[in-house]
Amino acid sequence: MAKELKNLTKRADNYSQWYNDLVVKADLAELSPVRGCMIIKPYGYAIWEKMQQQLDKMFKQTGVQNAYFPLLIPKSFFSREAEHVAGFAKECAVVTHYRLRSTEDGKEVEVDPNAKLDEELIIRPTSETIIWNTYKNWIHSWRDLPILCNQWCNVMRWEMRTRPFLRTSEFLWQEGHTAHATKEEAEAKAQEMLKVYAEFAENYMGVPVLQGVKSETERFAGALNTYTIEAMMQDGKALQSGTSHFLGQNFAKSFDVTYLNKENKPEYVWATSWGVSTRLMGALIMVHSDDNGLVLPPKLAPIQVVIVPINKGDEQLAQITAKLQPVIDQLRELGITVKYDDNPAKRPGFKFADYELKGVPVRLAMGGRDLENNTIEIMRRDTLEKENVSFDGIVELVKNMLEDIQKNIFEKARAYRDAHVYECDNYEEFKERVKDGGFFLCHWDGTAETEAKIKEETQATIRCVPFAYEQTPGVDMVSGKPAVARVIIARSY
Amino acid sequence: MAKELKNLTKRADNYSQWYNDLVVKADLAELSPVRGCMIIKPYGYAIWEKMQQQLDKMFKQTGVQNAYFPLLIPKSFFSREAEHVAGFAKECAVVTHYRLRSTEDGKEVEVDPNAKLDEELIIRPTSETIIWNTYKNWIHSWRDLPILCNQWCNVMRWEMRTRPFLRTSEFLWQEGHTAHATKEEAEAKAQEMLKVYAEFAENYMGVPVLQGVKSETERFAGALNTYTIEAMMQDGKALQSGTSHFLGQNFAKSFDVTYLNKENKPEYVWATSWGVSTRLMGALIMVHSDDNGLVLPPKLAPIQVVIVPINKGDEQLAQITAKLQPVIDQLRELGITVKYDDNPAKRPGFKFADYELKGVPVRLAMGGRDLENNTIEIMRRDTLEKENVSFDGIVELVKNMLEDIQKNIFEKARAYRDAHVYECDNYEEFKERVKDGGFFLCHWDGTAETEAKIKEETQATIRCVPFAYEQTPGVDMVSGKPAVARVIIARSY
Repeated sequence: MAKELKNLTKRADNYSQWYNDLVVKADLAELSPVRGCMIIKPYGYAIWEKMQQQLDKMFKQTGVQNAYFPLLIPKSFFSREAEHVAGFAKECAVVTHYRLRSTEDGKEVEVDPNAKLDEELIIRPTSETIIWNTYKNWIHSWRDLPILCNQWCNVMRWEMRTRPFLRTSEFLWQEGHTAHATKEEAEAKAQEMLKVYAEFAENYMGVPVLQGVKSETERFAGALNTYTIEAMMQDGKALQSGTSHFLGQNFAKSFDVTYLNKENKPEYVWATSWGVSTRLMGALIMVHSDDNGLVLPPKLAPIQVVIVPINKGDEQLAQITAKLQPVIDQLRELGITVKYDDNPAKRPGFKFADYELKGVPVRLAMGGRDLENNTIEIMRRDTLEKENVSFDGIVELVKNMLEDIQKNIFEKARAYRDAHVYECDNYEEFKERVKDGGFFLCHWDGTAETEAKIKEETQATIRCVPFAYEQTPGVDMVSGKPAVARVIIARSY
Repeated sequence: MAKELKNLTKRADNYSQWYNDLVVKADLAELSPVRGCMIIKPYGYAIWEKMQQQLDKMFKQTGVQNAYFPLLIPKSFFSREAEHVAGFAKECAVVTHYRLRSTEDGKEVEVDPNAKLDEELIIRPTSETIIWNTYKNWIHSWRDLPILCNQWCNVMRWEMRTRPFLRTSEFLWQEGHTAHATKEEAEAKAQEMLKVYAEFAENYMGVPVLQGVKSETERFAGALNTYTIEAMMQDGKALQSGTSHFLGQNFAKSFDVTYLNKENKPEYVWATSWGVSTRLMGALIMVHSDDNGLVLPPKLAPIQVVIVPINKGDEQLAQITAKLQPVIDQLRELGITVKYDDNPAKRPGFKFADYELKGVPVRLAMGGRDLENNTIEIMRRDTLEKENVSFDGIVELVKNMLEDIQKNIFEKARAYRDAHVYECDNYEEFKERVKDGGFFLCHWDGTAETEAKIKEETQATIRCVPFAYEQTPGVDMVSGKPAVARVIIARSY
């Protein structure tokens, strides 16, 4: 069984298969009988819960409050904002009826044709429309602004090709929707929330991200600007990990949301929206994990430390447990999540493989000889380094090791990412090299034509115009036309 | 504006209207453009979040883990369990298509008739079917049991008559689903979770509940036993506030879920499910609140203490704020949520009325004279008692007052409930008295006929056979037949 656990596709053999295997074998998620929808298993959900809790705290620190808006949105709402409907028309689930027909024996169930809805309802793919329809009633004067709402919910986009966490028809996310009196304030809020996402990705997930602004083609449907954080996976592909949109007055105009300014004159309200989803789970898995399984950042690991006794007989187990108990207590007092696994039905070897697969950051093991020598075995999951250390001071050692792992996996991911960001000025060279992954910093003439040509010929897309990059003008590598800035081009998930 | 806030229907005039008014005026929720679906506003959602956090903690203490299962369930799954489909067939939302059709200008959107789903999908009204279809793959041997999963999610039941929180087409809830090797273990789990609900209702919501078992007619569709907690509202009506079901092997048989026991023989798995929903918000509002607005239990109040400075000019405000700051800091250090409302745009009188309406448990106010005299005004929301006290020791006073309010509102609700529980042995008397509300303890012959007759003639239903009641046999008040126990009969929400 321990061997079976280890029987994971190697990243070098097939990165994509390695990911799919790992999601299932580490008990994170599985496919469901509903096309494109997944079941998030308890271990996977526990990681998502930790993400939620931290993000929620960070949102609230910026003044955001949670609320809840309906799952179903009247179809007509989508038509109000022209770009929005064009963006989402092809991927919505539509509720047309509200009743099954049940036969006496309960064996056959038909949709009752008489229970057709007057207006069809869409399962929300995103909630701008119903929220702005609501804000109309909440906003009258400048005193009512800003409104800073967020909701944690499920959304549905009928995707043709799905992969667990990365792209599923139903997914869990948060969507923030803010309303402001001025353009400047809304723009600032959109950028503030992007910074929250970047801070979360780097300091909690240990995932380095590049912040930037999307090209017009890649913007959210209805936005004037879409800001993004882009992470690099171990195959050099990009994963868009969170977006924040400056929506201008588009939704305010579509839903007629005005406020009276301090001069008592009506003005349209300015908007932002921003979201991250269970897609972050995909980034977390793909950035850190290895051929032995998951590698989790300590700050998001459901179990931070696992302790396995290696005993001969019950008496020795009692001795080991008695020796370990104060350590378990002290670690828990420090707020560290400890699992003591003395389950006799599973062998230590199986447990070791299983916790490696599940990415538990630190593993302690204690056997008979350790008891005699006052030692304990400690292993860190990120480097798989194992050593036998003195039992005294183990609490301090574990605490420091958790901090070090958190830092180390981020540094490792950043070093990998930095080593795979290239400036490139030659399209032929680009076409050849982009196949192997990486982020390419290339001058772009700003036209959708060039963007489309690159995508068609290389499957790579413009990820963003990066913020933290000193720009110099140049020449578009494809069209030869003048370009004001370099953009990041990469293949992506 | 303060007057408008107070313009709440009186309970004595129209209890039902008072409730509807209060939900809107206290900013808890509002109707949405989607029939029967509500928008939970930030203040209402903040209360629900506190409920969720506490319940989630209590569930986890019993070993339960969270997971997430799909929103959409294949129609055929519902047919597998005969009673289940009969119970839910009339109230489901059905997804038949997965795509809109968009025209060029974005103005018209039609459902694309070519994108009809092969199998229609139901928006979950509850998730037993898809969860037991999943458990089939998770359960092989006795070693895989028990499975203790919960999910926090939205569900949809197409209700014809809706009221905010009490009965809405979409609502938020948690649904726990457990799988066990033995009947005894499953029965014990169903009862354990009922006790968790009762403890939460009484110790956190301050709502006294009667625990008991439902009659066969009132059971959950597919259950062998449904346990319930029943609370009494201020109009004497019952509100079913949480249910826990012993499902026997019904779903295991429908979805063919067996395990190999220790003798390596296959047996069907035993099941429970249990849930509470945003309906609890209705109970919370109706049990404690009064003609001035909400009364919230301190343990669930988003703001526990509000402090309002009553200043003349900015200089005095600075003095008051400087004096109060250490108190604010000390209260927050004790984990108490404090709002200091020095917003100059609103008058103190408006603030007082608003925080009363919103049920903030303790209000402090400090003016110029208080500064001189080293005093402060304190008001408790439950009794509306107001007094001027010494500033010294205010932190301790507030802390104790919060504890006292939590206790007092529970005691008050329990005294009211206890004063409205009656033994009754005469059907004519019952018919007359039940109009005025109250719980009636009556002997029942155990037949569905008698139950139906009572319901038809009085609109009252059997709420449960209560646990904590010393039963003596007697004679059914309606049929005159022998009865082994008294049941609780009441009108209900």
